[in-house]
Amino acid sequence: MEIRSKIWLEIDGEPVFGSGRRALLDGIIRHGSINRAAKDINISYRKALSYIKTMEQRFGKRLVERKAGGKSGGGAILTGEAKELLQRYKTLEDGINVMLDKKFKEVFASKKVTLKN
Amino acid sequence: MEIRSKIWLEIDGEPVFGSGRRALLDGIIRHGSINRAAKDINISYRKALSYIKTMEQRFGKRLVERKAGGKSGGGAILTGEAKELLQRYKTLEDGINVMLDKKFKEVFASKKVTLKN
Repeated sequence: MEIRSKIWLEIDGEPVFGSGRRALLDGIIRHGSINRAAKDINISYRKALSYIKTMEQRFGKRLVERKAGGKSGGGAILTGEAKELLQRYKTLEDGINVMLDKKFKEVFASKKVTLKN
Repeated sequence: MEIRSKIWLEIDGEPVFGSGRRALLDGIIRHGSINRAAKDINISYRKALSYIKTMEQRFGKRLVERKAGGKSGGGAILTGEAKELLQRYKTLEDGINVMLDKKFKEVFASKKVTLKN
C-alpha cells in the first residue's frame, strides 16, 4: 500500500497553480515556445494562453514574455518571477513527497490491520 | 495564497481509500446503517455496497458487518479492523495538513515573488 497525493495552490479559493500549470511553465523553459509547451501536455495553444493569462491576473504579475511572430513563430520565455515561483513550487512538491511517505510509514508501519500489501 | 491537497491510498496502483470512503465509514459509525451513510454523501446504496466490497477485496479484510433486514431495515457496524484503518487514516490526514501548511509557509514565506495574497 502506498500514499498518493495531489497538491495545488489557491488564491481566494480559486486554483492558481498546480501540476498542469507547472508542466506548462516547464515546457516553456524547455522549448522557448508556448505552442510547443502546450503540445507536450496535450492542451491547445488557446488553452495555454488562457492558463497563463489567468495565472498572471491572479498573481498580479507578468509570468511569460511573448516575442512577436504568431502562433508557431516567435517565442516565449519565463520572467524571473515565474522561474522563482516554479522553483518554489518544485521545492514544495519535493519536500511534501518526502514528508508524506515518512508520515504514511509512521502511521501505518505498526499495522494491527494486516493489509494485503 | 494557500496550499490545498488531496490524499488517498493505493494498493498495486488501484485507489483503495480516500476522503469518499472515509466519509462512508464515518457515516456507518454515525448511523449504524449503510443506507443512511450513503445518503449523507449522496451516493446510492448500491454504490456504497460496491465501495465496501472493493475495499474489502483489496484489503483482504472484512470491514463492515451487515445485519439482516434488507435495504432500509437491518443495520451495519464497522469491524475492529475498519475502525483501526479509519483511525490511522485520520491521523495521517491531520498530520499531513499540519505539515503541508508548515512546509508551504517555509517555502513561500521569504517570497521575492510578491504575490497578491
